Parts: sequence; C-alpha cells; structure tokens
Amino acid sequence: MTEHTTGPSVKLDTPFGVDYDLVHGIMKNPQVHTIRLASSMRGHYRDAKALEALVAQGDPVHYEVFEMKIPQEVGQLQFCISKTYPGTVGGECFMTKGHYHAVPGTAEIYLCLRGEGYMLMKLPTGESACERFLPGRMCYVPPFWGHRTVNTGDEPLISFCVYPGEAGHNYADIEKEGFPQRVFKRAGKVEIVPAKAG
Amino acid sequence: MTEHTTGPSVKLDTPFGVDYDLVHGIMKNPQVHTIRLASSMRGHYRDAKALEALVAQGDPVHYEVFEMKIPQEVGQLQFCISKTYPGTVGGECFMTKGHYHAVPGTAEIYLCLRGEGYMLMKLPTGESACERFLPGRMCYVPPFWGHRTVNTGDEPLISFCVYPGEAGHNYADIEKEGFPQRVFKRAGKVEIVPAKAG
Repeated sequence: MTEHTTGPSVKLDTPFGVDYDLVHGIMKNPQVHTIRLASSMRGHYRDAKALEALVAQGDPVHYEVFEMKIPQEVGQLQFCISKTYPGTVGGECFMTKGHYHAVPGTAEIYLCLRGEGYMLMKLPTGESACERFLPGRMCYVPPFWGHRTVNTGDEPLISFCVYPGEAGHNYADIEKEGFPQRVFKRAGKVEIVPAKAG
Repeated sequence: MTEHTTGPSVKLDTPFGVDYDLVHGIMKNPQVHTIRLASSMRGHYRDAKALEALVAQGDPVHYEVFEMKIPQEVGQLQFCISKTYPGTVGGECFMTKGHYHAVPGTAEIYLCLRGEGYMLMKLPTGESACERFLPGRMCYVPPFWGHRTVNTGDEPLISFCVYPGEAGHNYADIEKEGFPQRVFKRAGKVEIVPAKAG
C-alpha cells in the first residue's frame, strides 16, 4: 500500500468544498490518497501464482481511494471517491480488500458514477448479498455488512462513498473470513461463483 | 407542498440498490417524492408580490426531493436527490426552504452533479458561510449549520445528498430567522447581498 497524507485535518466548525473530477474519479487536493497495488492484495485472490506473476510484471494499481481527514465522531460524515481499475488475476476480477466497519452498526452508501461491477456483501454469520454497480446505481450497505467492490468492466469503476463519522474500518476480520462469492470474467463472460467451488 | 409517499420503509437488515437518472435528477421508484411549488415558498423571498404573481401564473415547481424511508437511527444514513429549478422571484434566485437538523450536531454532504448555484449556510448565532455549487463540487455542511440551496444557473441544479440517519429536519427555526444573505440574478449577473439590504 502507498498512502500519501498531506495537511492538517479540516476545520470542522466551518463549511468547506471539495472538487472532484467525477469522470476520472479524482479528488483534487485530497488529504489522504491510498493506492493499493497488486502486491497489497496477497491472500485475496484464489490464484496466488497469477497474482505473483502480476506483481512481477509491474505490480499494477488495483484501486485508489481519495479522502479528507474528518474527525471520527458521531454526527460527522466520512466520504471518499473509490476508483477500482479493470483487470483480472487468474480470471478473477480486480476488487478491493473489503472491510467491515470498526463500529459495526454503521451503514455505507456507494453511488456508482462510472463503470460496472458488483458490491459483494456479507454478514459475520455468513449470510451474503450482491448488488450490481452501474452508473447512477446506488448501493445501500446496511449496518453490520462487510463489503467489497468488484470491477467487471473494461474501464475504471468509480463510486462516491459516504459513511458515518465514527465508523472506522475493520479489514482484519474480512481478510480472515473472505467473502462467500468470487467474481470471474473469462472470454468476456462474468460469473459469480461460490468461493469454495473449484 | 405536494408529497407522495409509497410503499413500506425499506427492510434495513438487507442490502438494496437504488436507481437514479443523474442527468435529469430523478430517483426511480422513490418512497417519498416531495414537490415544493411557488405557493409553498411564501415568506422566503424578499418580494412577496412577485411570488404571488408567480403563484397566479401557474405556481411553478421550485424544487423536488426524492427519498427512501430509512429508519431515523444512529448508524443508518439518509440520502436523497435534490433538484432545484432555475428561475427568479423579483430577481431573487429560486431556492430551497433551507433547514437545520432536528438533531443539530449532524453534518450533511451535497455532491453537485449538474447545474450551478450556491449553498448558503448559517449558524443559529448568525455566523454565515457560502459554498459554490458546480458539477463535481461537494459541499460539507458541518454539524449545527443550517443550509439552503440556491440555483443561479439556467438548468436544474441537481445534488446527491447524504446525512446521518438520526438527523431529521428543523424547518421552523430557519423560517423564523431567515438567512443572512440573499442571491439575486439580474441581466445574467449573480449577486450575493446582505438580507437586510434594500
């Protein structure tokens, strides 16, 4: 992971504006810019060898997140632009690590602005759900649901995301558990398959 | 005000998707669709006579809001599409009523997708702020700030809005207090003027 952090936390007693390029999925002057390379995705794809080959071939970017530093407090709102690149690892579509919230009872909203794909979701109890991403389609991730973005298209999948100020991230539990589904694309055909299947 | 409400509150233990037409500022199958006509804006514009003339001439729509029924609980997120039409009342630009939140310590995010204008903001103590709306520009309304959208352009001003589940609306205090600024457009020129000025 490469993470650039600049500037102080924004002053939250005063309104402020943020400028996005919504076509290219970029926040101008972000305070936190996280870039996840193939090498930061070890353990997430079924085909570990294919991932290592990709790392050796130049370690391409899987996704980027642009954020501002908002206090982690009830009543505030965190927001970001998430940009997941197109591509596959042994046929499995590029995706985000996925996370629960550190405060589990907090929702998240993803408004898809460009590209196509899926939001994979799961509860700690194993129940799963899946919503389609297309431009203009919003996904409501209710409290307690872990979630991961998957790009099944040929261009970047760009979403605007908002979640409660206090939510935080819990990547560790999802990393241990994985998701019940995996999404593959072979010869242009997208398939969502059970993670345990061969 | 015309308000259409359909269907039960969404089931919030299960993820769901919502489809928007982001170019026209429409939510497909909204559960709450609020339409504010000129006649529902009495008391908000400086020129009451000009407003009555507009009401008599067909009572045009000033703005529309498309929503889903989300439980008013901490951890959930309310969201809507807000569409403010272009036009003027005695030179004053079409705008929303504006509101505080019923739970004052809650923020709101507006992502402008189309059109142009301003977000006027104020604290109950009288301090004021103003942010520009343009496509791709997001406005962060911090906790405690009342806010009103003003359309200064020639096409609808469309924003995607998110706020904490528990926030609620307080229209009454803003209606009593008004905003410290008014926005006029005369001969194509936009001016933000103190509300008390002649």
